[in-house]
Amino acid sequence: MLHKIQSQTTSRDQMIDITDQVRAVLRQENVKDGVVTIYCPHTTAGITINENADPDVVRDLLLRLDEVYPWVHPQYRHAEGNSAAHLKASTMGASQTVPVVDGQLLLGTWQSIYFCEFDGPRRRTFYVKVQKD
Amino acid sequence: MLHKIQSQTTSRDQMIDITDQVRAVLRQENVKDGVVTIYCPHTTAGITINENADPDVVRDLLLRLDEVYPWVHPQYRHAEGNSAAHLKASTMGASQTVPVVDGQLLLGTWQSIYFCEFDGPRRRTFYVKVQKD
Amino acid sequence: MLHKIQSQTTSRDQMIDITDQVRAVLRQENVKDGVVTIYCPHTTAGITINENADPDVVRDLLLRLDEVYPWVHPQYRHAEGNSAAHLKASTMGASQTVPVVDGQLLLGTWQSIYFCEFDGPRRRTFYVKVQKD
Repeated sequence: MLHKIQSQTTSRDQMIDITDQVRAVLRQENVKDGVVTIYCPHTTAGITINENADPDVVRDLLLRLDEVYPWVHPQYRHAEGNSAAHLKASTMGASQTVPVVDGQLLLGTWQSIYFCEFDGPRRRTFYVKVQKD
Repeated sequence: MLHKIQSQTTSRDQMIDITDQVRAVLRQENVKDGVVTIYCPHTTAGITINENADPDVVRDLLLRLDEVYPWVHPQYRHAEGNSAAHLKASTMGASQTVPVVDGQLLLGTWQSIYFCEFDGPRRRTFYVKVQKD
Repeated sequence: MLHKIQSQTTSRDQMIDITDQVRAVLRQENVKDGVVTIYCPHTTAGITINENADPDVVRDLLLRLDEVYPWVHPQYRHAEGNSAAHLKASTMGASQTVPVVDGQLLLGTWQSIYFCEFDGPRRRTFYVKVQKD
């Protein structure tokens, strides 16, 4: 009931729609009702749910997050220099939980599940954990 | 085990205490122990848990979120003009998960569950999903 | 299946690695596979998952959060004066959910679970709720 999925990100900040990959797990596991948790095992990446219709939403979201948590900050001490990525990761969250009803994710019309890369490009992993009712 | 609840918001930014509505679901389902997930299917709204005693907490929270994620930004491109609402939604989160113990939400004394409107007023929906132990 | 753990924080802003305490619960409950939820019942504290290798990550994270949500703000009205702590709490989140696989938390190599204090020092509590498959 746990699925590991790999993904190659291609830029420093990026949101990749992984909804179809989560749906494929539900079909494969023949889930009717329950809860699915999408979990990110990285500390400079996260999972969020947001709009899938206009790609400018993701663009604006990454743009403003980068202003709120700037990459360069005179007082940061972390030697890797990616403290901003750690801040964005905790802000978006390491996981998202979505109910499953009659085999379908309970997403709203405009919602997709996104893997959020904040220190790419990298080879990344996420997990899909299903809890059946 | 899944309940759909509707709510009419009345301003652009608003936090509505939905704790009693979640409690009503637990009573109706006769839940003893388990976990409840409160899920928001919108991309410009979210769910959070915060203080219910002094309404100025919610006021200050919405005030500062609006400064951190300003409604107007010269570089936003999303045509609907509500990118700030999408940012606030991902920051608060699409859902909250609360353990249930002996029929009661495991909330702290000052905690309530809030539906967060960031692009209202609108007719909104949220779901309460119960997982019994 | 619900464990209550207490912790004494020692400064206003602090992140305490509680991963070993969560692992101890899994051993005690003899969990093989499932999901664990770590829940914070306070409104000026939260739970997050982030890096455990370089302590400067936590330091930089707390430093920047304190700039984004400053303690002093001319427009805050909440009489207790800790609105910033409430903002940080909602940003980090009241809980984290982590899958358990073969008795182990599904954390990445560099991930730890943190109790986040934003208005300490205080005596604090958190809960560990296990759902076995």
